[in-house]
Parts: sequence; structure tokens; C-alpha cells
Amino acid sequence: MTAARSVGLHRVIEPAGVLPQAALRLDPSPAIGPDEVRVRVRRLNLDAASFRQLAQRHGGDGAAVRAEVLGIVAARGKMQNPVTGSGGMLIGTVEEVGPESPLKVLPGDRVATLVSLTLTPLAIADGLRDWDGRSEQVPCDGHAILFARSIVAVLPDDLDPELALAVFDVCGAPALTDRVVRGQAPGPVSVAVLGGAGKSGSLALAAARRAGARTVGVVPTEAERDRLAAAGLADAVALADARDPVAVAAAVTGALGAAATVTVVCVDVPGCEHGAILATADGGTVVFFSMATSFAAAALGAEGLAADVTMLVGNGYVPGHAAFALDLLRAEPAVRRLFEARLGSRLGH
Amino acid sequence: MTAARSVGLHRVIEPAGVLPQAALRLDPSPAIGPDEVRVRVRRLNLDAASFRQLAQRHGGDGAAVRAEVLGIVAARGKMQNPVTGSGGMLIGTVEEVGPESPLKVLPGDRVATLVSLTLTPLAIADGLRDWDGRSEQVPCDGHAILFARSIVAVLPDDLDPELALAVFDVCGAPALTDRVVRGQAPGPVSVAVLGGAGKSGSLALAAARRAGARTVGVVPTEAERDRLAAAGLADAVALADARDPVAVAAAVTGALGAAATVTVVCVDVPGCEHGAILATADGGTVVFFSMATSFAAAALGAEGLAADVTMLVGNGYVPGHAAFALDLLRAEPAVRRLFEARLGSRLGH
Repeated sequence: MTAARSVGLHRVIEPAGVLPQAALRLDPSPAIGPDEVRVRVRRLNLDAASFRQLAQRHGGDGAAVRAEVLGIVAARGKMQNPVTGSGGMLIGTVEEVGPESPLKVLPGDRVATLVSLTLTPLAIADGLRDWDGRSEQVPCDGHAILFARSIVAVLPDDLDPELALAVFDVCGAPALTDRVVRGQAPGPVSVAVLGGAGKSGSLALAAARRAGARTVGVVPTEAERDRLAAAGLADAVALADARDPVAVAAAVTGALGAAATVTVVCVDVPGCEHGAILATADGGTVVFFSMATSFAAAALGAEGLAADVTMLVGNGYVPGHAAFALDLLRAEPAVRRLFEARLGSRLGH
Repeated sequence: MTAARSVGLHRVIEPAGVLPQAALRLDPSPAIGPDEVRVRVRRLNLDAASFRQLAQRHGGDGAAVRAEVLGIVAARGKMQNPVTGSGGMLIGTVEEVGPESPLKVLPGDRVATLVSLTLTPLAIADGLRDWDGRSEQVPCDGHAILFARSIVAVLPDDLDPELALAVFDVCGAPALTDRVVRGQAPGPVSVAVLGGAGKSGSLALAAARRAGARTVGVVPTEAERDRLAAAGLADAVALADARDPVAVAAAVTGALGAAATVTVVCVDVPGCEHGAILATADGGTVVFFSMATSFAAAALGAEGLAADVTMLVGNGYVPGHAAFALDLLRAEPAVRRLFEARLGSRLGH
């Protein structure tokens, strides 16, 4: 069955018949099928929620975090945190391309995968010996398998690969923000971004402004407020704990003069659903990008608040999202500076 | 602070500052504030996912289920299942209306609450002695508190109150389905409803057809298939396990001749996200109404499948949703028969 094969069903070991993302265990054998691609992995970029959970669980003990990641990949044939359910991405070099693969890559290309590690067959060969377990970015030697329906991007020549990878990791956020803002009824659109100083948040702010919206970035600390204000990425910056609904609503309304037309949640901690809903105007839209979002909290929260808002599950895939995000980074020096500051010494700065 | 008070913040005991739905414990004291309403409770209608979890946990032991519900309400001051996070609704009689309440009810009115039990202060006075613990509908004597921003409907005279309550419980589904179908770009719209023979599913099918869509109902058993086909509520009926993505996609595509423009998930079991995504055409929309939906599975699944679909968290509140759903029930005898069959002997049929 071609449709099933194109999404990797043949690599699922258990339980049988589920898609790779839902599987407990995948087969990461290096031999590829005619429509598959094998990538030599150079680096994993763990999902922020996943890394935070691992780091907290082990009290910052890097060796223990490393051992757990190795254990997960050995047991599951993929890197999917069993607590958060999330994964991350990888960069590497294309080793072999099956004759029937539709992916536009050649052996030797340096690439990043734009589908989650949660569904990518992966085997680690070096015991992650070059990783100290204290950062989301994991130097790694191993191999990964891409399916016909995977998404992969060749790394651009003009950007540090770690910078490009960090952008790709969140590139769905600016693309979907752009689409949602442009899809609002005619009239002025205002956008609140919770977590506006982060990676997805800063790109979402830049995308919203470029699409014509007035923007406010909501951040939890004075240091982030000052940094975001200095970057000039948002029309206003407000201080609030995203988990405090009343504070978030007051901060957004105070900055915009009214509730937001669109609220984008880019804070990767649980409990931000109600603040986002309260901060959004009737008839408006909330876009949830955080993997820490609770479906039930969002659905029941809107009902309980009698809030007539459209709530979107932030789909990480929007056609053209990688190129769109790279263009934003190139065009907005402030976004690039925020990313580079977050990546810090790994970029040699 | 009026906004905070209108959503019930003053009734939250712990943790302080969160909204009632997120609270561990509410204060269900019967004395009302000037903008509150006290209702004498006659019946609780537990959320399907919650009741299923309780029944499974206790292996069908009704007395144990009853004891756990009593324990939850005593400990939390509201009925919120700590595992599923969901609650349900109630019917009762208005006892007292504060002078500043904006709710359009009077003492003596028979009403149903349209906000979740997860945020409604509740105290049970009769030990649930008239409930056998084997049904979602729970005879109950007690009291509940409504806030200024609660939603409440006076029960219609022409319908059995249990029938009206069952409709109110899922009335967000048809209203949002109607809105989504009418919001699609011009051109023919097709709608697949997973769980089309259930309460929310049958109303969603009726709403989709009334909005002009061609419809397919997907059900898991031959008995449900025959029942839904005989009801004539959908243009086609297909058989598939909603947790099997490949089977769901094949069933929907087979019935419609192509993937669906809109897929509505009304199956209250986990694991239906990927099938819904695979069954939906590029550019289409998935609406998740099941409280068993996993945010991460939806977000990562769409990304992993490179699926350009809009995914909506099914908001239980759409203005006018209660009247819309009652009108559908009155206009579609097949919907009414499905509801009455599900309620069975409790309606005296």
C-alpha cells in the first residue's frame, strides 16, 4: 500500500498498524527501501519541553540525561520523550537516496529534517560521547531514515547550520501566524504573542507585524522585557506570567487598548490556555504552538469562560514554512540577534 | 475586580489566582454574592470520557463509582474527574438570583447549565442514594453556584428535560460544524464525522448536511453502521476503527471519492488524531470535539504527515449553540430517535 508506505508504516514494530509517531518502537535498520533516504546524523536538536523535562527530572545531572536519551533511542528506535511525547529535529548528511524517493536531496547534501524525531527511525552509534547532557543541541553520530512523505531542507550556505536548525525547529509558528493574521476579516488586526522573546515567539512577532498587525509581546521577566523592547520586534512589550489568566488579560488589554484579535501561545510551560483565551477578543483566534498545551484545558476553558474564540492546534507544517522563516531571520536583524544570543557560544560568538 | 469576579475567581480556594476550571478546590458555600445564582441540583450528566474512565477503573462496580464521585465532589467542591480532566453538566431549579446577576433566569425556573461541571461549585446533599453508578445520568440533590459569566438555558417545555440535557451537553459540536462548513471556500464541501452515530456525531452530521455539505459518517461496528444507514442522517456510512489511521483514510476516501474537506472527530477514545488528519484533504479542516484528543498527537501528527490542514480545538461555546441544537433535534426526527434510543428507559420509552 503506497500511502501507508509513504508515511513509514512498514517501519513500525509495535503496536502494528499505527503510524510511526504513535508507535512504541520503530525499526531503524540502515538498509533503505526504494522510496527511503538514509541520513548520517551529526546533531540532534531536542524539543524544548522534552529537554526541560529530562533536565528537571535528573536535577541537571548531564550524565544521567545523556543515559536516559540513549536508553530511549535504544528502546524505541526513535527519540520521543515518553513523558512529554515530543521529540525534536536533526541535521546530518545524506548518505543514500532510494531510486523512488520524491525528496529533492542528493548524497552529500547537508540537510535538516523538518519532521519530528518522534516519527524518525534513529540509531545512535557513538554513545553521545560529545554531549554533556546540559543543552538541547546534541552532537551525535548515527543514522536516521526518511520516508517518501518526510520533509527535509538543505541547509543554506549563508547561515550557520545550528542557526538554521534552530529556525527550522519553530518555522511552523511564523508561517501559521502569517496565514491567520491575513485570514482575519478586513480591519485592524492586533496580535499578542505569549513568550514573545523566545525562538518561535520572536519569529511569530516578526511575521505578525509583516502581515500588517499591531503587536504586543508578553514575557515573564524584566530581563526579557528589556531585551525584547530593545530589539524593537513588537509595538509593545508587557510583563506577565503566562500561567496567570487574569494578569495576562490585563497585560494584553493594557498594551493594546483592547483584547487581541489573535493570540499566539509560544510558552512551553503548562497552564497558559486560559490566559490566552481571556486575552483574546470575541470572534478572535488563539493559536497554540506550545507542546505543553492541554487540549481539555483549552476546550473546557473557552466553554467555561463563554469565550467565542477559534482555537487552533499549531500545525508544524505549512507549505513553504522553512523558506519563510529563513527569510524573516535574514530580513530582521533583531530576530537573528535573539536567536544568536540563545545559541550563544555554540555559534562561536 | 469585576472581570475576575464574573468568571468566579473569588470561589477558588487553591491554588489561589487560577480560574475555577484549573483549580484543585472550589468553595461551594450556598450563600451567593450579588452577581451569583444558586441552583437546586436535580441531576448531573457526567461527561462520557469521565464516566467511561470511572466505570473501567472500577470494573463496572456501581457502588465504587458512586463512592468515587462523592469523594471527588467532597474534596474538590466540583465534579472534575482528575484523570480525564472533564466534568459534565447539570439540571436543576433556580433557588436564588443575586440582584446583579446578568443571567436571564428567575427563582423556580428549570434550567440546565451549559458550562462544564469542572468549574461549577457543587455540593451534594443526598449521598447520590438514587444513583446506581451505572449510567452517566446521576439523580442528585444538592446545590450549585453560577457566576455572572456562566451560561444557562431554561429547559424547553416541549422536550423531556433529560433529552434536552443530552442535547445541550454536545451542542457546541453542531454549531461549530455549521460555522466551519459555511466558512470553507466556495465549492462543494464534504464532511466526514468520526463517531457519526453518537450524540455529538449525529448532530454534527445533521448540521453539516443542512449547511450544504455531502457527508459520510464513520462508525466502528456493523450494528452502528446499520443503525446510522437506516436513520438516513448521512449521505454515506463507512465502517472503520477510528484509531486506525490507514483504515479511516481508506473508508472516508472510498465513501466520498476523495479526502474530506472537513473532518469532525466525535469519538471519545484516545488515538483518533492521525486518522482524522490522513482522511482530510490538503487545505481542509479537522475539528476535534473529543475530550480524549491529545494536543501533541495532533500537532506532531500533522507535521509528521506533512499535512496542510487547519486543526481546531472544539470550543464548547458558540453563541446560540443551545437553540441551534434543539432546532436540529426538532427538525430531524432521525436525530431525535438516536438520542431517545441512547437515553432509553430513562425517557419512559
